[in-house]
Amino acid sequence: MTTTLNEYPVLHGVADIRMETHPLPEIGRDEVLLRMSSVGLCGSDLSLVFKGSLGDYQLTPPLGIGHEAAGVVQGLLSFLINSPGDRVALEPGDPCWKCEMCSGGHYNVCFTSDFHAAPVPNPGCISRYYKHKAALCHKLPESVSQDEGAMMEPLSVAIHACRRAHVGVGSSVLICGAGAIGLFCLLAAKAMGATHIIMTDIRESALKKAKDLGADHTLLVKGGEDGKVLACQVERVMGCRPSSTLECTGVPSSAALAIYATRSSGAVVLVGIGAEDVALPIFNAAIREVDIRGTFRYVDCYPVAIDMVAKGMVDIKPLITHRFEFQDVTKAFETLRRGSNVIKCVVSC
Amino acid sequence: MTTTLNEYPVLHGVADIRMETHPLPEIGRDEVLLRMSSVGLCGSDLSLVFKGSLGDYQLTPPLGIGHEAAGVVQGLLSFLINSPGDRVALEPGDPCWKCEMCSGGHYNVCFTSDFHAAPVPNPGCISRYYKHKAALCHKLPESVSQDEGAMMEPLSVAIHACRRAHVGVGSSVLICGAGAIGLFCLLAAKAMGATHIIMTDIRESALKKAKDLGADHTLLVKGGEDGKVLACQVERVMGCRPSSTLECTGVPSSAALAIYATRSSGAVVLVGIGAEDVALPIFNAAIREVDIRGTFRYVDCYPVAIDMVAKGMVDIKPLITHRFEFQDVTKAFETLRRGSNVIKCVVSC
Amino acid sequence: MTTTLNEYPVLHGVADIRMETHPLPEIGRDEVLLRMSSVGLCGSDLSLVFKGSLGDYQLTPPLGIGHEAAGVVQGLLSFLINSPGDRVALEPGDPCWKCEMCSGGHYNVCFTSDFHAAPVPNPGCISRYYKHKAALCHKLPESVSQDEGAMMEPLSVAIHACRRAHVGVGSSVLICGAGAIGLFCLLAAKAMGATHIIMTDIRESALKKAKDLGADHTLLVKGGEDGKVLACQVERVMGCRPSSTLECTGVPSSAALAIYATRSSGAVVLVGIGAEDVALPIFNAAIREVDIRGTFRYVDCYPVAIDMVAKGMVDIKPLITHRFEFQDVTKAFETLRRGSNVIKCVVSC
Amino acid sequence: MTTTLNEYPVLHGVADIRMETHPLPEIGRDEVLLRMSSVGLCGSDLSLVFKGSLGDYQLTPPLGIGHEAAGVVQGLLSFLINSPGDRVALEPGDPCWKCEMCSGGHYNVCFTSDFHAAPVPNPGCISRYYKHKAALCHKLPESVSQDEGAMMEPLSVAIHACRRAHVGVGSSVLICGAGAIGLFCLLAAKAMGATHIIMTDIRESALKKAKDLGADHTLLVKGGEDGKVLACQVERVMGCRPSSTLECTGVPSSAALAIYATRSSGAVVLVGIGAEDVALPIFNAAIREVDIRGTFRYVDCYPVAIDMVAKGMVDIKPLITHRFEFQDVTKAFETLRRGSNVIKCVVSC
Repeated sequence: MTTTLNEYPVLHGVADIRMETHPLPEIGRDEVLLRMSSVGLCGSDLSLVFKGSLGDYQLTPPLGIGHEAAGVVQGLLSFLINSPGDRVALEPGDPCWKCEMCSGGHYNVCFTSDFHAAPVPNPGCISRYYKHKAALCHKLPESVSQDEGAMMEPLSVAIHACRRAHVGVGSSVLICGAGAIGLFCLLAAKAMGATHIIMTDIRESALKKAKDLGADHTLLVKGGEDGKVLACQVERVMGCRPSSTLECTGVPSSAALAIYATRSSGAVVLVGIGAEDVALPIFNAAIREVDIRGTFRYVDCYPVAIDMVAKGMVDIKPLITHRFEFQDVTKAFETLRRGSNVIKCVVSC
Repeated sequence: MTTTLNEYPVLHGVADIRMETHPLPEIGRDEVLLRMSSVGLCGSDLSLVFKGSLGDYQLTPPLGIGHEAAGVVQGLLSFLINSPGDRVALEPGDPCWKCEMCSGGHYNVCFTSDFHAAPVPNPGCISRYYKHKAALCHKLPESVSQDEGAMMEPLSVAIHACRRAHVGVGSSVLICGAGAIGLFCLLAAKAMGATHIIMTDIRESALKKAKDLGADHTLLVKGGEDGKVLACQVERVMGCRPSSTLECTGVPSSAALAIYATRSSGAVVLVGIGAEDVALPIFNAAIREVDIRGTFRYVDCYPVAIDMVAKGMVDIKPLITHRFEFQDVTKAFETLRRGSNVIKCVVSC
Repeated sequence: MTTTLNEYPVLHGVADIRMETHPLPEIGRDEVLLRMSSVGLCGSDLSLVFKGSLGDYQLTPPLGIGHEAAGVVQGLLSFLINSPGDRVALEPGDPCWKCEMCSGGHYNVCFTSDFHAAPVPNPGCISRYYKHKAALCHKLPESVSQDEGAMMEPLSVAIHACRRAHVGVGSSVLICGAGAIGLFCLLAAKAMGATHIIMTDIRESALKKAKDLGADHTLLVKGGEDGKVLACQVERVMGCRPSSTLECTGVPSSAALAIYATRSSGAVVLVGIGAEDVALPIFNAAIREVDIRGTFRYVDCYPVAIDMVAKGMVDIKPLITHRFEFQDVTKAFETLRRGSNVIKCVVSC
Repeated sequence: MTTTLNEYPVLHGVADIRMETHPLPEIGRDEVLLRMSSVGLCGSDLSLVFKGSLGDYQLTPPLGIGHEAAGVVQGLLSFLINSPGDRVALEPGDPCWKCEMCSGGHYNVCFTSDFHAAPVPNPGCISRYYKHKAALCHKLPESVSQDEGAMMEPLSVAIHACRRAHVGVGSSVLICGAGAIGLFCLLAAKAMGATHIIMTDIRESALKKAKDLGADHTLLVKGGEDGKVLACQVERVMGCRPSSTLECTGVPSSAALAIYATRSSGAVVLVGIGAEDVALPIFNAAIREVDIRGTFRYVDCYPVAIDMVAKGMVDIKPLITHRFEFQDVTKAFETLRRGSNVIKCVVSC
């Protein structure tokens, strides 16, 4: 390894991305040094870049960017898990494996875990090089490309959300929002055996894409409509009420629809979150025992996601609509913000 | 059976209770005619009597009153389940046993079931006589009194709520609100093995009662405080964060406390419901995977409740603080509304 | 309805099937009279016909035959559920909906339920006409044929078995036995998202069929081999250990393989049962917390099974290998007994 | 720390225990050095000492002895978890926290974990000094003695077994075998809310103890009786069938009783295991969906066990019937082997 310098974009404030050069990170025995390949951009990145916040988290610059990533193993001190040249998808996070969440099988809500995009001089995943825990670098088989590898992150989000919603064979599913994460949820729900899927969105084009990708039904909404009225429409279009609902918009009126539409003793999983506090029709949810469940990242989903793509159970290639070179990361974010036909942007490193 | 007339109070409007006389009901082969003994009054009765509404349900008078009840079997056409003279606790409701909720083990949210307190000429349980499905009349052993029998309803609510919250051995539990239902939840949680229970209330006297009944800790709140601040206090007083929270007040600031205080991957069960829409700190709940679950009545809880009392696992007698004669039902409601030392009022029929 | 006579085969002893004529059954308000279309034969029928027993059940002739069935609604007294002419799949059984199993969501193990093939004069499903509970007649959509409708029974068995085994997205599954029920389990497991499926059998031809239908791996066994040795082979061929195992042979050495092969904290589901008592490597199962679960029929699986076929999630047509006319039922059983290339025989009524 | 030598008994072959002297162990940053206080003897120790085997494990001497232990923290390098002088109960094992069992919440069946009683020069817990992972040393409150601390191991076994059997409020429980572990299961089941508990044993004296400790019913068995007949007796004595059965004898006829007696869709948990292969009435279990579950140690049970004793939810003192000095360990094993009135022997270190 002759290179000793690393290069990556750093967020210095709202919409202020600067390319910087830093020394290569040193790795420990349980880590690997990766030559990064592909990194996807997601809505949370977008929120940090252009709004300077994410839910109740306020941006504290300077900050690295990106967490949907695939790379190639370059340096490592222990050969127990990976070998040099392994193409891998990076599962973000770094659970402590000691707290009660970790020992109880909930490492996604580990009390001490930090997410990627740590403070500089640590880069985000959009970087020439990146160090990561070896155990969280999941090897990609030949049939899965690096771009697809970067998509293991949103696909894992979708799998975890579907699991939290108890989606299984024969499930009827309402997915609110046909943006990128809604479409990943669609693919995951179908692979898990859902037999009736309806998707809502405010954009005709998004619903058309949903249909193309296998949604059984779609419903165009305007936003702000009465949740009870929409719920009746969902039932009429679908022929039944959904037992599982994935709310991917973070919009309060959509969350109201989610609750009113869901069958008694079913579940609404909040995949997209907007504001810190949201007014929900709690009375209706409570007396019908419709559970409201959040979702945070994923637990043991990466290997499943990789298998699903390798086995052809899901085709995620149509979701990667835009590709950008490393130096064009600002342009990539601009495209993501504006573009109505953008599903996923991937930055090549 | 020589009596052919029935007598019971009817709600004709807000705070307008009138005693009426009606013919005795005829019973079918799967029903029994009961001579009623004891009926408890609960917060939902109170809301109907004095506010004319309950959540999003609007009172449509005339309406019978009461659903926490015990009686004695007097008339029946089939001897398969009960015998004349059986003292029984009445489980309200009348599931269809045919819909998908019933066949799936969720008869409490049966699509077609009606609750007690049906339109006149059907009485509520506060009545000289009452007819009910034989299968929902649970026999009381000698050691359980009729007054206690009437309390099987709120105890079943508490058991179901604790089950929905996954309370079990070693659980740490936060119970918001030390009113009647909160205290029943306390007794149920202890019998289920909870090792750390903290209760909140705005009344010192209620918290004293909670301590007397076995709460490990109490926290006096003022109402309207910041949920995050209170959550820290709960953790400090309790020495840990609750894994299960039972919100029994229906007050938004208490629901916020419930969410902020609960451990990651734990559950908040909404036992008390106030307004139709409630603003909740959904972002915090979601990213920590704290589930928000409603609760409606009970599923297979009556036999458990009866066993618990019969075996001495819970002592519910201290919760019955006031008794009234049949003709004093209006006075009973007045007492329940005013009295700060009232836990449960029971009307003798 | 001018016909007043019914015709069906009756089992009078081992291998003694006689065609008989009986009056048409009368129906109640919750029943329908069906003109039968297609009935599949299964291993339990075969065991009754040629061995005169099934597990610990001894044949008590005369007995009707068949329980995998589809028909057309001809007569009914109530139009709440079905209409005349509806093509339906018949879910066998008749749960009481009153016992604790039914109210708890386990109607398949209802304390009082009887299976089809009741004593004569009740026919089995192989009959010109048949009466059944309307609520258990599941309407078939246009895209599902009557022959496929008869296959909803074994498909429901497979779905229930996969659910009991917690098969889901990403599951690795071992299916012991590539006979009819093993192949239905294969189809169900794939539709539920299993990513790694290995099947065993003693017949090369059965394993070839398994491969054709989508098994990822196969392993030819001889029967009677050491379970530990085979378990190592399963792991080597599969590249991992199965988390869920479906034992469909009822052969003790296969059950031993099932236990030794299954991953710690996984589950072995016994779909095929042979003898009443079986010696199992319980010590190994216990210390690795591999659960051993039986499976009996199905709970709420018919609607899912129908949806799966209608949506093209499974193709069950290749499993119907032989068709027979009504009068050739004896020949059908002979074929099923002898034929090594038989998967499912269907009798047309 | 001036002492540099450790002293402990070593098992050199069947019934061949020799006291030896070895250097004190060195500790790492995540470990503590403990001055041992109390160690309980259990049936698995007994089997190793006098039979030289345990299930399919063959003794490979020399081996240390004991795993039910409490001690006092003496030396440590990091103060994150414990402080010098802390009285602690030692949770045996050393999970890797990296394998899929550990990350999935099943650290008890970790692929790589070793149990206590490792090969010499490592001592068993019966030792003057012992080193252990700090994270597995659970602090005892003042109200819990060192002898009780040693009993946290069998109590944790009982809690885990009850959890695996889904014992909860209102459960009816059959416990086969009123030996030490059966009695711990009795205490745990009662604390978890079981309302009907029946225990079986071949010894009148054991059943008397069971009654004294709170069993609702007892049934004297002879061993080798017909399981179906005994199951009827259990139902008659108990007034219902158990939903959860804990089989603590390891005797095949008792396992058969366990299966036949258990209610449909209930569970039999195998706590005591005898032979490697056991013939079970699998057909009966399967068609009634009675699950057969093994149990191995415990997951997150020590803190619960300690709380239960500290809160007075269980009184385990009556179970400690015999105490021995450190040098009398051989005598302790002899007593455990012979004595019919022995429940637990504790060795003081």
